[in-house]
Amino acid sequence: MTDSVPPAHPFDLATRLEPEGEHVFRARTSPDYANMVGPFGGVTAATMLNAVWSHPQRQGEPIALTVNFAGPLEEGDFVVTARPARTNRSTQHWTIDIVQGGQVAATATAVFAVRRETWSSTEAEFPTVPPASAVESASHRIRAAWPRCYDMRFVRGPLSLDTEHDTATDSVSTLWIRDEPPRPVDFVSLTALCDAFFPRIFVRRPKWVPIGTVTLTIYYHCDASMLAAHGERELLGTARALQFRNGYFDQTAEVWSPAGELFATTHQAVYYRE
Amino acid sequence: MTDSVPPAHPFDLATRLEPEGEHVFRARTSPDYANMVGPFGGVTAATMLNAVWSHPQRQGEPIALTVNFAGPLEEGDFVVTARPARTNRSTQHWTIDIVQGGQVAATATAVFAVRRETWSSTEAEFPTVPPASAVESASHRIRAAWPRCYDMRFVRGPLSLDTEHDTATDSVSTLWIRDEPPRPVDFVSLTALCDAFFPRIFVRRPKWVPIGTVTLTIYYHCDASMLAAHGERELLGTARALQFRNGYFDQTAEVWSPAGELFATTHQAVYYRE
Repeated sequence: MTDSVPPAHPFDLATRLEPEGEHVFRARTSPDYANMVGPFGGVTAATMLNAVWSHPQRQGEPIALTVNFAGPLEEGDFVVTARPARTNRSTQHWTIDIVQGGQVAATATAVFAVRRETWSSTEAEFPTVPPASAVESASHRIRAAWPRCYDMRFVRGPLSLDTEHDTATDSVSTLWIRDEPPRPVDFVSLTALCDAFFPRIFVRRPKWVPIGTVTLTIYYHCDASMLAAHGERELLGTARALQFRNGYFDQTAEVWSPAGELFATTHQAVYYRE
Repeated sequence: MTDSVPPAHPFDLATRLEPEGEHVFRARTSPDYANMVGPFGGVTAATMLNAVWSHPQRQGEPIALTVNFAGPLEEGDFVVTARPARTNRSTQHWTIDIVQGGQVAATATAVFAVRRETWSSTEAEFPTVPPASAVESASHRIRAAWPRCYDMRFVRGPLSLDTEHDTATDSVSTLWIRDEPPRPVDFVSLTALCDAFFPRIFVRRPKWVPIGTVTLTIYYHCDASMLAAHGERELLGTARALQFRNGYFDQTAEVWSPAGELFATTHQAVYYRE
């Protein structure tokens, strides 16, 4: 997936895989995409998708990915295993895991498929927004490295921590977002971007508490050709939580091209303390 | 999970497991929950959750489940394997699969956790609806058996096939739903109910085409005690699709108690032809 990309882009280094066996790859955490503790989960998910994408037995393009973050990933090497659980005529089901130091750090499943042209219809509505060029690029107060790998332009719902805005009545964010420095989007980078919507609790409340995504699901609505046509321009993201309750909340997001094509929908469940 | 339930309820028969080894259970398809081809996916998902729920090493209650339907399940016996991939202090990650005739028919992952009381807030809005008693119970024209295992009362968005309504402009449904005959809800039956929202394409269009859920995710927002307090009354469901495109659409749903408690949110990606 790196043919058209300068080899030095930090995202490609962060998701790089070295084959070690039929289904086994070695990967390495990247300081550019470090989070408060361990790596940014979006890059971990992207690395797992990349293992399927790079697998010689892969058929078709991604339809769905679910990653469960089972335990912390330490800085350094880890092993990604991606196995086709079942290959049908037009769909292929994968199981993936990450092991580090003898412990499972993440499990995942993915569905790939060959699409055929059919009746199509988008029911979700593209938000009314100014163009990316008319919105200021955000800078964040949080100490994690990974947000610097994205250019984010908030139309609505920045981090309450950044604005000292303590009266948010909901957790909705709408923003233009792209890799920083710019990089042509592909399925691997779209995967990471789907996890780049800050935890909704930090939009809703200006208080820093320990949080962690426990599971992330992405539905891919686009083809590789649509992504190639989009290139490195900004994507429009909109994210919201449905419920926070006793230590867990869910959040859901849509990722659109500026032309109003829905590229991905994504959901996650997040642990929080207090 | 069957202590308080009459042993003869068809749902309990359909999700029954016989332990066969440390992580292995035997199950059997039920004609009551048959679909057009194979069993109703909701019962397959519920049987997988039941394997974790019944497992002696299970800790806590479900937070999330993702089931990938990899291939058709034939009528008869199948084997469910549920293994704890990692057990942390308050969370536990599971991998689950179904094998029949030497082939993987489904893979799944689940997150279980012990919740603690925290600040909580519901952002999703409970729909404005008449009480279940004021809405007529639907009967369906489709030949599958499983819809007869649910009492459905549509406030909005019935099957277009039932109404010969060919002008639907969206795929939104809002309905009261419960097991038929009534059965006290628990995590296992809530799992099946999350898949009981008809494929959105049959709400949007009055045309029957081959479809199949390829992946289903459920986020559980409730405790066992909330479910026990709810009992066997109707739940309110609301479902919609975000996009249909070239053979796959996604659908998303919320499941509420009549008191406005959000019990579950659920998402799936569905294959369709034409």
